[in-house]
Amino acid sequence: MNSEFLQDKEIIVASNRGPVVFKKDASRDEIELIRGAGGIVGSMIPFLQKTHGTWVSSAIGECDHHMNNRYDGKVPIPLENPEYYVQFIKTEEDVYNNFNGKFANPLLWFIHHSMWNSPYSPCADDEMHQAWDSYKYVNSMFAKAIGEDVSKSEKTPIVMLQDYHIYLTPKMIRKQHPDVLMSQFVHIPFPSPEIFQQLPNHMQVEILESVLTNNVLGFHIRRYMDNFLRTVKQILPTASVDHVSGDILYKGQICHVRTYPISIDIETLQKHGKDSTVMSKMKEVDEIVGNCKLIYRTDRADLSKNIIRGFQAYDMFLDKYPEWREKVKFVATLMPSRQDIKIYREYTDNIKNIVETINQKYATADWEPIKYICRGDYDLVVALLKRYDVLLVNPILDGMNIVAKEGTILNENNGVLVLSTGAGCYEELKDGAICINPYDIRQTAESLDMALLMDDKSKSLLLNEAKAAIRRNDLNKWVSDQLRDIEAVIYERQEIKSKDGEEAVRMN
Amino acid sequence: MNSEFLQDKEIIVASNRGPVVFKKDASRDEIELIRGAGGIVGSMIPFLQKTHGTWVSSAIGECDHHMNNRYDGKVPIPLENPEYYVQFIKTEEDVYNNFNGKFANPLLWFIHHSMWNSPYSPCADDEMHQAWDSYKYVNSMFAKAIGEDVSKSEKTPIVMLQDYHIYLTPKMIRKQHPDVLMSQFVHIPFPSPEIFQQLPNHMQVEILESVLTNNVLGFHIRRYMDNFLRTVKQILPTASVDHVSGDILYKGQICHVRTYPISIDIETLQKHGKDSTVMSKMKEVDEIVGNCKLIYRTDRADLSKNIIRGFQAYDMFLDKYPEWREKVKFVATLMPSRQDIKIYREYTDNIKNIVETINQKYATADWEPIKYICRGDYDLVVALLKRYDVLLVNPILDGMNIVAKEGTILNENNGVLVLSTGAGCYEELKDGAICINPYDIRQTAESLDMALLMDDKSKSLLLNEAKAAIRRNDLNKWVSDQLRDIEAVIYERQEIKSKDGEEAVRMN
Repeated sequence: MNSEFLQDKEIIVASNRGPVVFKKDASRDEIELIRGAGGIVGSMIPFLQKTHGTWVSSAIGECDHHMNNRYDGKVPIPLENPEYYVQFIKTEEDVYNNFNGKFANPLLWFIHHSMWNSPYSPCADDEMHQAWDSYKYVNSMFAKAIGEDVSKSEKTPIVMLQDYHIYLTPKMIRKQHPDVLMSQFVHIPFPSPEIFQQLPNHMQVEILESVLTNNVLGFHIRRYMDNFLRTVKQILPTASVDHVSGDILYKGQICHVRTYPISIDIETLQKHGKDSTVMSKMKEVDEIVGNCKLIYRTDRADLSKNIIRGFQAYDMFLDKYPEWREKVKFVATLMPSRQDIKIYREYTDNIKNIVETINQKYATADWEPIKYICRGDYDLVVALLKRYDVLLVNPILDGMNIVAKEGTILNENNGVLVLSTGAGCYEELKDGAICINPYDIRQTAESLDMALLMDDKSKSLLLNEAKAAIRRNDLNKWVSDQLRDIEAVIYERQEIKSKDGEEAVRMN
Repeated sequence: MNSEFLQDKEIIVASNRGPVVFKKDASRDEIELIRGAGGIVGSMIPFLQKTHGTWVSSAIGECDHHMNNRYDGKVPIPLENPEYYVQFIKTEEDVYNNFNGKFANPLLWFIHHSMWNSPYSPCADDEMHQAWDSYKYVNSMFAKAIGEDVSKSEKTPIVMLQDYHIYLTPKMIRKQHPDVLMSQFVHIPFPSPEIFQQLPNHMQVEILESVLTNNVLGFHIRRYMDNFLRTVKQILPTASVDHVSGDILYKGQICHVRTYPISIDIETLQKHGKDSTVMSKMKEVDEIVGNCKLIYRTDRADLSKNIIRGFQAYDMFLDKYPEWREKVKFVATLMPSRQDIKIYREYTDNIKNIVETINQKYATADWEPIKYICRGDYDLVVALLKRYDVLLVNPILDGMNIVAKEGTILNENNGVLVLSTGAGCYEELKDGAICINPYDIRQTAESLDMALLMDDKSKSLLLNEAKAAIRRNDLNKWVSDQLRDIEAVIYERQEIKSKDGEEAVRMN
């Protein structure tokens, strides 16, 4: 990307969850700002700051709504001496629940992760069709807010939409602003056409027609991009799809479909790994693990993460290799997720049950086979990532999986990554890991044994290979590659214009 | 196909279930022969008869085994004046249960129909790995029996393998008989690579490497063939795959992958429709249906058939369009299937529950909304197919679905087919049906109403379109097209030989 490119631009980011949340600090009766964690926030903020841009997102609580009103829809961050702005979209609670709790999650999420139990679900009943109406409505609220920002902008706006919550927003924006530069990035896998077709027909068409109005559409890896191209070809037969470049011509507009594998901020992460807060957690880890070897996993307790098969594999491992009993400890830090949705509550219960079963089956007076920690303590996670002997990352499907990258960078124990072929980062990290089929618990059990028995030299080779793969890419590149491709759209337009101009001259 | 082609050939068919079963007639204490029904049997037998060939299959009961022994592995059919032979493979009961009841069904069946509930199942534990060993063993028994037939044959044998129960058999045969002419037909859908990869890695490789040793490999429709080609490309990267022709070059051998949509024997079916047994069933149907419009479905109660969503749609239909109450009757003839497998028993229970719920919800003194008939009465099925106003065929996925074709040919009531996009016959019949997304019960409910309200002329147009599509293809063509492509392999070989000959002459 040309470094001067951003000088006359304004970046407008939009996503369901924003970069900050406002909460009431009960002790001081003041509203305080809590910054969100995660890769997208970290990578987008510098570009927002450079352009004094705006991040549009759903209001999560009353405080967000309150701040939004107080600052007339443009909350400056920081409040004094603002570097960028946030704008919260407030929707009625039941509409938001339909939009997010019924349509985006679990319906769209499950479809993207090929996780529906097809003989029984999903089922497009009236409730689902109504949830679609709410999804459309919230998407239109996003489009309206972004459209107004675009209209008001004194610079050239670049709209960067995030993820599947707002699939219908781009077409609504495009209708008002035919020339706006717009991209969307899909942070989760994209399924094959057969699975995408679990959606009612008109929803399939409306989603695809909308995302194709983006100038640039990004996926993490080629596999997801290929699924998307095939899905478009199947559902919109008049689309002209270039399966090599990823360019799609549909209804007179070109959408450039590309891959941008997201990464981590290596320096910030390494710095965090040396924080005193993490160092004190290292002691806690020592107490938990003792002299045992440490198998570790950390996940949001989502069904796509394959937590239960991971534990079943550990059960089989202790059964098949009794020599490891009392010499190994499985620590799992798992954050319960989406507990308002029944299938998630059931999944959390099933996790608890299998942990108990394993502990009852193998525990001795001095040894607990698994420790399951359920609290949001990122310093503890970092300490465990520094310490593991084996990191188990076995998702069924996973957009990228940042944990595998974080663990590889942080680990100081010559640890081995056991990695599922279903993880997005499998493409990058496969030569630096023991790779497993996520459905094969026998292979997973054998891989745990293999990883623990591996000699130091082999372990270093793997770890260095994985580290090198991560260093080839970085988080800044993820955004700047997208901006580079948006910049190319401007040149493309200028070329067309100048050709049209030549043509006009000749015609005269 | 050249009509003289079969003169010096012998056809050897193999499938898990054979064309005949022997059973003890308790009243006479004699063993009697029961001919199997179904398209494959009907279409294959004439070719077996022409060549005095052999059909190899699993022994289902003790009588099969007994007859096999009595006739030294070649039971003549008919016993006097034989036209062809059957050969039964007897395996230990627990091995057979592992092979069929655990590996082929449900594991492979569910994978081919994309029906696993991926967060929980399938799970490649020790039991599944052991079931694989049994699958391999039974496949080797088939290979051994067929290999011996090939060795003993005084003519040129053509081995025609049927379906997914014997995926590993072709490679075992090929090893002993490098030049034997061999084809395999897959009667069920083939899944996308993501779904096929639910199998443990080595199983994926062994299955694909084996089926690629066939000279000809057949699927019903292009969609399944494309999934197979992409799966091969992904799992066996050294395979050279021609995505247009379907030719695959792997390890020095070419496999011709082709489509052969199976059909029905129109004449025999029409003749059956006029049988007195069917005519008497028509009266029974009149009593059941009375003056109501008839919505009908008939299926093996398999999870892929989407029976529950079909009934949910009928529930919604009665709710949304109360004007149809007491004027319509849903008759379903459903045969319970695979009741030795837990998920099938649960499915049958769930079907019974929803039928009861609907009847309790809407029944009046004189009207029962659904009649669920659970007995194997093909004459009754034929009578109902002649009589329906609407035939609901809404599978999630279905290799071909013969019911839709049979209904179209038999119906005498200007009935309308409501057809799922997931049915294999959708490709052929889509212009002669109201098409639905199998997951969308609202759309299904609306389609039932639309079908019932359609005027006679529109109904005739649809029915004629569907009939014409079925007449374009017939059952004899299904076998002869496969034989034509096997014949082409012989010419291919002769060409290569003659080229090699020329080359040899030139070299001298």
